[in-house]
Amino acid sequence: MHKTATLIASAAIALTLAANASAQVKPEDQIKYRKAAYSFASWNMGKIKASLDGTYDAAQVKAAANAIAAVAGSGLGALFSPGTEKSIGDQKTTVKPELFQNGAEVGKLAGNFAAAAAALVKAAESGDAATVRPAFGEVGKTCKACHDQFKSRN
Amino acid sequence: MHKTATLIASAAIALTLAANASAQVKPEDQIKYRKAAYSFASWNMGKIKASLDGTYDAAQVKAAANAIAAVAGSGLGALFSPGTEKSIGDQKTTVKPELFQNGAEVGKLAGNFAAAAAALVKAAESGDAATVRPAFGEVGKTCKACHDQFKSRN
Repeated sequence: MHKTATLIASAAIALTLAANASAQVKPEDQIKYRKAAYSFASWNMGKIKASLDGTYDAAQVKAAANAIAAVAGSGLGALFSPGTEKSIGDQKTTVKPELFQNGAEVGKLAGNFAAAAAALVKAAESGDAATVRPAFGEVGKTCKACHDQFKSRN
Repeated sequence: MHKTATLIASAAIALTLAANASAQVKPEDQIKYRKAAYSFASWNMGKIKASLDGTYDAAQVKAAANAIAAVAGSGLGALFSPGTEKSIGDQKTTVKPELFQNGAEVGKLAGNFAAAAAALVKAAESGDAATVRPAFGEVGKTCKACHDQFKSRN
């Protein structure tokens, strides 16, 4: 319970910081940067998956886990300001407008992502594929949980 | 001298790892992911700049520095395989073909970026803007050094 409360508090703080920082980033750039952040995370998830499915590369997995955690801890809430609910020109978004109406839920999901990513970093430091595998799965679940609720299919 | 040699060796190892990993990523996705990585780094550079120019936010600067270091340490060489010299369909690139002919120089520049980013993380941990400012400037120089040589203007 305490951990959950801390996570929600952290997410709330992150969103507050985000709100301050967002003033500096144009709406179309917010879409660009958030897509870049998730794309960068996705590439790194792919590297860990390739390592788990093939020859385990402990150094690469560690670097990839750090990258995912850095994305999760980067204050992405700053890139979901009002005005970024829909595609802007060339910057297409698949976000559902519901995200912008559900700050508490989004904060919880973001906190889960950050916590799972931090656990993945710890697991990766072991250098052991069997330790990394479940931690990797947990991160994947937190990605999916948010996509299922707040990302449209097209 | 020793440090430089270590950096070049690290970069060479990173490129080797990269070559192994690149087999799994389609050329158009390599362009997409490398642009995402640099875009994510750029957003985080912007946050540090905003903090240095305005009210210093130590936690945000630390997270941003970690994000930049994670990008620098993510094995980006894997995303510059032969076949990614030019735009592919919707995936536009501004890379110069010369990058693909100058592995040693690229490795050196990548090593400089990683070293400057690591130094920025250390500086950010101080929580002191005056310590972060020059370290931030050094990272910016390593970005520019590579852009000047290997990124076209359009």
